[in-house]
Amino acid sequence: MALGLDSTTALAIAKDQGFDPYALSFRYGQRHQVELESAARVVEAMGVVEHVIAEIDLRRFGGSALTAEIDVPKERSVEAMGEGLPATYVPARNTVFLSCALAWAEVLGSSDIFIGVNALDYSGYPDCRPEYLAAYEQMANLATAAGVEGRQHLKIHSPPIALTKAQIIARGGALGVDYGLTSSCYDPAEDCRPCGRCDSCQLRAKGFAEAGLADPLLTRFAGD
Amino acid sequence: MALGLDSTTALAIAKDQGFDPYALSFRYGQRHQVELESAARVVEAMGVVEHVIAEIDLRRFGGSALTAEIDVPKERSVEAMGEGLPATYVPARNTVFLSCALAWAEVLGSSDIFIGVNALDYSGYPDCRPEYLAAYEQMANLATAAGVEGRQHLKIHSPPIALTKAQIIARGGALGVDYGLTSSCYDPAEDCRPCGRCDSCQLRAKGFAEAGLADPLLTRFAGD
Repeated sequence: MALGLDSTTALAIAKDQGFDPYALSFRYGQRHQVELESAARVVEAMGVVEHVIAEIDLRRFGGSALTAEIDVPKERSVEAMGEGLPATYVPARNTVFLSCALAWAEVLGSSDIFIGVNALDYSGYPDCRPEYLAAYEQMANLATAAGVEGRQHLKIHSPPIALTKAQIIARGGALGVDYGLTSSCYDPAEDCRPCGRCDSCQLRAKGFAEAGLADPLLTRFAGD
Repeated sequence: MALGLDSTTALAIAKDQGFDPYALSFRYGQRHQVELESAARVVEAMGVVEHVIAEIDLRRFGGSALTAEIDVPKERSVEAMGEGLPATYVPARNTVFLSCALAWAEVLGSSDIFIGVNALDYSGYPDCRPEYLAAYEQMANLATAAGVEGRQHLKIHSPPIALTKAQIIARGGALGVDYGLTSSCYDPAEDCRPCGRCDSCQLRAKGFAEAGLADPLLTRFAGD
């Protein structure tokens, strides 16, 4: 997970529900390795049993502004984000990520996979919708020995899926999440400073504004 | 793909059906890199548009004799292979492989993914069954932009799924496949010589015997 708002809040909710989480991040050829530093900070602050960074080079397949030399779109209106797929879409990314999580879950004997996807304030990615996650869950239960033998029923959880960004921020805040550690930007500077203009920065800003809160990440950089 | 009997025959059938195939192999932490040399030889002999070897280290998640320091079971009877899951099962392997193929297919604009899995003469892996592949196909059509927008209907093909090993060998032979280039063994020697005793070697031997043919791979090593 990138550890942006959605993933971090999903992790906080999993812990609040009594799970002992294992965290999985990916070095997938993203332009910005800063995502992984952010993930490590979040995971350390929140506490998990184990944090694995898996290597899988999605650049090999091309097709996205997040992994290839294509410009990240900036200054799109939030309304426009719902129309058509942006260049930041990484083909089948969540499917690849969930499949690695499924492999690990089966080895660990875990029945529960949490992913922070959101289908309300989002960029229109097909693999962020509830019907996709439901189909993934059904497939996962046929893919694994434990599922087939009826020893466990795999469940894919995405607690933020039906929340607005403002609701996600409020929920995470109530659980003590420090969003100053998270990173949402698709095109951050070397020092992690967000660009403020990509879809993800705009959705984040809208969320904090609607929640009536200051974004601690921006506060941190404003102090520079 | 390992390029064993099933994958190689699936590739030959795809070509025979008029597809221009792109081939995808994985360096997934398997003990035997010889698999990839075999894949490269097969792909070169058969002709594909492009061959990509993707890197994804499934050892990170453990749990299998094919990726970890667990002994590969030997001398199991073919009947015993149908009962319970052997140590060679790699958790969620076909799901991870298909997910990478899905990413690449979406970038290429391809609607057809071929995988060489077989549910008759096999080791009892859950991710080799027709109901698993059907569920994967359904999920894939919800996971991708092209599927969601109705621009294409992704189809997962596994031509060998309902054939015996003998039928697979006969079909591939009729299409001119040179099985002397393929590798099936779970535990080959440095020079690619098959162990002859693992599940995969035994299923292969049974297939050639039932097809009434000599295995050209064994003929090659018998000449040493």
